[in-house]
Amino acid sequence: MQDVILSLEEVEDLAFRVLTANGMAADHARAIARVITAGQRDECQSHGIYRLLVCVRSLREGRVVGDAKPVVTDVSPALVRVDAGFGFSQLAFDMGSKVLIEKAKNVGIAAMAIRNCFHFSALWGEVEALAAAGLAALAMTPSHSWVAPAGGSKPLFGTNPLAFAWPRPGPFPYVFDFATSEIARGDIELHRRTGKAIPLGWAIDETGAATTDPEAAMRGAMLAFGGHKGSALSTMVEVLGGALIGDLTSVESQRFDGGVGATPCHGELVMAFDPTIFAGADAAAGEKMAEALFGAIVAQGARLPSARRFEARSRSLAHGVKVPAALYEDIQRLIPA
Amino acid sequence: MQDVILSLEEVEDLAFRVLTANGMAADHARAIARVITAGQRDECQSHGIYRLLVCVRSLREGRVVGDAKPVVTDVSPALVRVDAGFGFSQLAFDMGSKVLIEKAKNVGIAAMAIRNCFHFSALWGEVEALAAAGLAALAMTPSHSWVAPAGGSKPLFGTNPLAFAWPRPGPFPYVFDFATSEIARGDIELHRRTGKAIPLGWAIDETGAATTDPEAAMRGAMLAFGGHKGSALSTMVEVLGGALIGDLTSVESQRFDGGVGATPCHGELVMAFDPTIFAGADAAAGEKMAEALFGAIVAQGARLPSARRFEARSRSLAHGVKVPAALYEDIQRLIPA
Repeated sequence: MQDVILSLEEVEDLAFRVLTANGMAADHARAIARVITAGQRDECQSHGIYRLLVCVRSLREGRVVGDAKPVVTDVSPALVRVDAGFGFSQLAFDMGSKVLIEKAKNVGIAAMAIRNCFHFSALWGEVEALAAAGLAALAMTPSHSWVAPAGGSKPLFGTNPLAFAWPRPGPFPYVFDFATSEIARGDIELHRRTGKAIPLGWAIDETGAATTDPEAAMRGAMLAFGGHKGSALSTMVEVLGGALIGDLTSVESQRFDGGVGATPCHGELVMAFDPTIFAGADAAAGEKMAEALFGAIVAQGARLPSARRFEARSRSLAHGVKVPAALYEDIQRLIPA
Repeated sequence: MQDVILSLEEVEDLAFRVLTANGMAADHARAIARVITAGQRDECQSHGIYRLLVCVRSLREGRVVGDAKPVVTDVSPALVRVDAGFGFSQLAFDMGSKVLIEKAKNVGIAAMAIRNCFHFSALWGEVEALAAAGLAALAMTPSHSWVAPAGGSKPLFGTNPLAFAWPRPGPFPYVFDFATSEIARGDIELHRRTGKAIPLGWAIDETGAATTDPEAAMRGAMLAFGGHKGSALSTMVEVLGGALIGDLTSVESQRFDGGVGATPCHGELVMAFDPTIFAGADAAAGEKMAEALFGAIVAQGARLPSARRFEARSRSLAHGVKVPAALYEDIQRLIPA
């Protein structure tokens, strides 16, 4: 079967119709459709329209509140809290980030604590939204306990992503978004399905020994990237993205899931920084120095993170996106006749 | 020659006398003597009284302003800026952190930007000071450009440390403090002096090829820890600890140094978080979850970062510290008769 070519508007419209047809409130569906369209646009396939299958399953299982009303609390001049009410995170982010941006622009640094949300979206979209408002941003969130601490042998940490953006002149900010695990859980799952060995360093088996067997890895534990340093960073994500905001660590989130294997429910911490307030009269010099740094990275043949994604974005904006016909049909079938 | 045993009071008194005898103002000398004593106490030898040799050389060279008056600016309810006036960083930190703590306790999250400081102290002391006030803390600073970006071959980033602390019941917080380089520059220098090969993965030579030759590594570039993820983190430290606050990146700091090889002059970003404001009524539950996490790390045989340092601290508090007699005499000689 051939691929189906869709414009970004068609992707967003399809996503909206699928979600609302499965009982999701329109405001949530709009927010999620935008995020899914962005994933498809940037050719992050697992965050593109494929995700609709997962979202609809979650909705049909009844664990996620499809019409949750996020409650935004203005805690202080530097802190906004959003209780997502056990809905998906995207609407909570959209509502809270408006307040976060305003606060950061007023006082220089501000944070948003999102609580009680089901979270599946990549964090790059969130930090990019803040960079588009002229702010630097740092975001982190726990997940489910799959990763062993350095020197340990049992799953404890989530894959715990950390994302950062810095606003740049032109269409693309500086952005990274990475799991603090050596690799995404999906990569091990993919090897398992295709019967391929995984590289050493990705995971350990149930006894804590290094393994290349994806089955043994799934029963054992994933490893943090970068040894004890990555493990320490992952701990920080648990503590700031969980304990600090009074929401769940990855262990507790997995306990809450109760073996269902649904989208993880927990919180998220997002920080925003306004360079014009931090640097004052030296903000232009600071921007120039950041640009010189990015220029020097590229000049020596290294790549900026997200470069591949931005290339895909340019392609998709010009030519639309390709969706495998089988996936497209699976998604069409999610809309009851 | 035997080691000299000193009490912590004797170390602090010695450091104070050495610094003031070499023209440092008393307030700076007190702040630095405390930091040097803490380094010696925790058996971080390169941050202990050995540092007095480096401090005095910097003072005698006249690059560091020994009686700089840090200027604390209350920028906003969430931001304090300290201009260190080209003195050492410690007094600026001490003065600014009082304001930072107050702000974080008022609004939940706050930041301190220290600018124009000569910086040699480990960041763990700073984040621990904030944890002692009941706050979580995150600190970062550039250094000199020694580290190549992932995929590149030329020095660009500093060793760019990142330190984090979380307050715990009992005497010791959760603390990590690591360079975003694979290894400290001093470790390569130590191998060079003793003519030993360095492990693969620490550095590359001038052509960008992996090397085990410490001489070639010093002419080439160090590597970031954890590949492209560590490299991205190091970029973030440059951008937040340099460009954001309107101070120097590692490249610019090295240019400012002009080949002297002195203590790096640049800025530092410190953030503080108050769990009682972030989590509100759930702060006790958050603390309990963090404690459960730390407990689970230790229970599976892994160690918490800084454990070795805290063991040394307990020993030093009980028995004093050992200083090699030759080093002790070198330091005594820094006090003019």
